[in-house]
Amino acid sequence: MASNKEEVKVFGLVESPFVTRVEIALKLKGVEYKYEQEKVGNLSETLKKYNPVYKKVPVFIHNDKPISESLVILEYIDETWKQNPILPSDPSKRALARFWSNFIDDKCSNGARKVCFPLDEKEREKSIEETKEALHFLENELKDKFFGGEDIGFVDIAAVVISFWFSPIQEAFGLKLFTIEEFPKLYNWSQEFNNHPIVKEKLPPRETLLAFYKGRYEEHFGSK
Amino acid sequence: MASNKEEVKVFGLVESPFVTRVEIALKLKGVEYKYEQEKVGNLSETLKKYNPVYKKVPVFIHNDKPISESLVILEYIDETWKQNPILPSDPSKRALARFWSNFIDDKCSNGARKVCFPLDEKEREKSIEETKEALHFLENELKDKFFGGEDIGFVDIAAVVISFWFSPIQEAFGLKLFTIEEFPKLYNWSQEFNNHPIVKEKLPPRETLLAFYKGRYEEHFGSK
Repeated sequence: MASNKEEVKVFGLVESPFVTRVEIALKLKGVEYKYEQEKVGNLSETLKKYNPVYKKVPVFIHNDKPISESLVILEYIDETWKQNPILPSDPSKRALARFWSNFIDDKCSNGARKVCFPLDEKEREKSIEETKEALHFLENELKDKFFGGEDIGFVDIAAVVISFWFSPIQEAFGLKLFTIEEFPKLYNWSQEFNNHPIVKEKLPPRETLLAFYKGRYEEHFGSK
Repeated sequence: MASNKEEVKVFGLVESPFVTRVEIALKLKGVEYKYEQEKVGNLSETLKKYNPVYKKVPVFIHNDKPISESLVILEYIDETWKQNPILPSDPSKRALARFWSNFIDDKCSNGARKVCFPLDEKEREKSIEETKEALHFLENELKDKFFGGEDIGFVDIAAVVISFWFSPIQEAFGLKLFTIEEFPKLYNWSQEFNNHPIVKEKLPPRETLLAFYKGRYEEHFGSK
């Protein structure tokens, strides 16, 4: 698969959990890549050319072929570099991994967004309840050390938004979504995952995220 | 892979394009299955047990293992029964097929829903524009007879919502979204796809869908 002359590139933003997913997967596979840092609110023309549909990070380039959408990129990485697989080999376990990863985007990433920027207070309360309900599903789904079993896998990587992003988001927005009291198994998982040597190396500094989300809060609601 | 004693079952609704996706894929693979007909607004306890997260059709059961979410089910079917593959073998083409299938759900299925049931007239107009913009992306993406090339593939099957559902929806709701004038290539594709012998056999009667969506319209807006 991987030739010697191949070029691997990631267009990313340090604030994006979707970019971090891709970087963790590449690190796990031991694939070297070049990182192109984009700027929030001022994405490069190159990025927009590569992802004309969504105009978003991450964009992943392998030998001049661009791929967008983080979960699609993870599948591509797993199919192209076979070492340290992140999806299980059994089709029904693969289906479950895909199901829960989509669920995380659908219910948790979108849930957090609606909690932070609701149309009104009623919508915020509803979104908090829905996001917590989603976290309870994940709490029940977690059977081993990781969602992937003894090693981190596809769902763990998808869930970096929960393990590492939820904490600064809830601090910046003054929310209680994801606590050790309500989600003990998921909370312990998040600590194990964030401290996994490969993951740790690819997580951005927490203070960078906190400053970013405090900025978003003030921009949206004005300073208190 | 497939043993002689295996049991394959689909919990479906005749009105759901997501169920039809699964049925087309199974028919293409030549897999026999049992169909359990659910009722709109009165889903069975069995279905809710199998899909406790979303409580939606389709649910696909293979040897007692339930799988939900139509695109996840399509991947499972393609991995389990290897004949007549619906995803290409090349990883970058697979990534593109996944990207466009997700895009269809994200922009076209959701777009049509927002067009039909908008919060207000302003939202409807915006949703019409966005859905048309999405269809233009697909119009440009269509290079061959089918999205899958000379044969139907993953994206074609995902796009059954456009090929067959958009017409009764726009008739029932009095909309113009998907017309031959604005989308000539996509329109021709839809005719080719709907008339493909395997697809044709799995499409519900158009009048059933039209009656269903007229009912939804009257329920929502009152009869005119």
